[in-house]
Amino acid sequence: MAYGSGSRVALGIAYDGAPWQGWQTQPHGRTVQDTLETALLRFVGQPVSTTCAGRTDTGVHALCQVVHLDAPVHRSLQSWVRGVNAWLPDSISVQWARYVDDDFHARFSAMSRTYVYVLRHHPVRSPLAHARVGWVFQPLSLDRMQAAADLAVGEHDFSSFRSSECQSRSPVRVVHGIDVQQQGDYFLFHFHANAYLHHMIRNLMGVLIAVGQGRREPGWMAELLARRDRRLSAPTFSPDGLYLAQVSYDARYDIPALPAETLLASLSGIAFTG
Amino acid sequence: MAYGSGSRVALGIAYDGAPWQGWQTQPHGRTVQDTLETALLRFVGQPVSTTCAGRTDTGVHALCQVVHLDAPVHRSLQSWVRGVNAWLPDSISVQWARYVDDDFHARFSAMSRTYVYVLRHHPVRSPLAHARVGWVFQPLSLDRMQAAADLAVGEHDFSSFRSSECQSRSPVRVVHGIDVQQQGDYFLFHFHANAYLHHMIRNLMGVLIAVGQGRREPGWMAELLARRDRRLSAPTFSPDGLYLAQVSYDARYDIPALPAETLLASLSGIAFTG
Repeated sequence: MAYGSGSRVALGIAYDGAPWQGWQTQPHGRTVQDTLETALLRFVGQPVSTTCAGRTDTGVHALCQVVHLDAPVHRSLQSWVRGVNAWLPDSISVQWARYVDDDFHARFSAMSRTYVYVLRHHPVRSPLAHARVGWVFQPLSLDRMQAAADLAVGEHDFSSFRSSECQSRSPVRVVHGIDVQQQGDYFLFHFHANAYLHHMIRNLMGVLIAVGQGRREPGWMAELLARRDRRLSAPTFSPDGLYLAQVSYDARYDIPALPAETLLASLSGIAFTG
Repeated sequence: MAYGSGSRVALGIAYDGAPWQGWQTQPHGRTVQDTLETALLRFVGQPVSTTCAGRTDTGVHALCQVVHLDAPVHRSLQSWVRGVNAWLPDSISVQWARYVDDDFHARFSAMSRTYVYVLRHHPVRSPLAHARVGWVFQPLSLDRMQAAADLAVGEHDFSSFRSSECQSRSPVRVVHGIDVQQQGDYFLFHFHANAYLHHMIRNLMGVLIAVGQGRREPGWMAELLARRDRRLSAPTFSPDGLYLAQVSYDARYDIPALPAETLLASLSGIAFTG
């Protein structure tokens, strides 16, 4: 039932990662992808495979994950949003839909990805920030963290920040910027890169926090990059405050550059200036 | 084992109301009070009864519920925070502790209570705001809602806004102010009053939203107050976005006027100016 150009659909998906075992489909089915594909099956009446821009880990959230699929039936854009949402649980929802050119690929067409880590420093844990915001009870130095972060910017071999389970062929990634902001008890870390290795941001966060707390010097970041050995680095930090915030594509695809700002502000109370 | 003055303890409690059947103890035990008292039993080794400032409904959150108890043992203030938190689930935590005069009573000494309702207008539901923020998909007029809210300020018989289950002897309450703010898709409603009837704020919200959407005129608020009949009013609105934000006491009790601002900002993305 192919009907040519216009059958490829891009969807923007937001989710609370806390109840899910990450994005990617698993035999047990408790993933965002499995849940989305089940909703799509119910909506269109036949199996639909999806491909995403960034495979988030267990507990990692998305303000705007981008997905593409080849639609076996025609539906209005509004139907792709409301109709699929009717079959999705409260923790996942489609934010927008677009018909895109057949050469659009959610993963391979992506030029860069922005993740944001929201971290709170406070002596006492917050029930309302639980599973949405990372938490440290020791004080942090913004300047020290920014100094260490700056050392990770550029094209590097990120082997020291790569999970042993990472399946990427190359450990090289280009980090365009890591910007750290503070407002009161909250720290917001914006990561801009072409792509990331498995656990790369959570491993970078482990190092930034160790530096922020004064347990390490900012220069440790450069040393770790040079050593290319995961065993030397800090522990992988919690996924609680990590959000896939934005995926950028060539303007010709007309993919919305979305309400990441608004949604993130709703979580962090900090004006999102990324 | 009484040891006189200094054995009454005030605690500031924050909680995510979503998993709980409200504050007040129930035979089934799935309430915030039951869970707190179980944690206190484990911490001090004997039963401890608590009294709160505001008995929140199922699904209603607290940035700072105030509780008092008579401590059967002496513990440091830090222990009352960390020791009790060690026995509490992620959705509840003690934010601070104070030893207070024996005449302090969390409920009867309270001079006023501030609740905040966080409401989002958006065509699509947000997984990350689920159960934390109320949601309407129809547009709202800030000016119309503020005009209606102003009509509820003062001493009134709030029978039209009172649940049939309300056990209060008098339907009269003094509303000091209802301030409505907007930032982007978010509306923040600050309710300041001496006290509230059962479901009073959720019933007021139902009316404010009906007026904001243009289904009713602002003057409907005055009409409902005058009619004193719950059957004429709007449906009780969702508890999702409702937070007990602050309880005020005479300054001599030294009860912290707390990080409600910060915590609320973390949820709403709106500077809290209450």
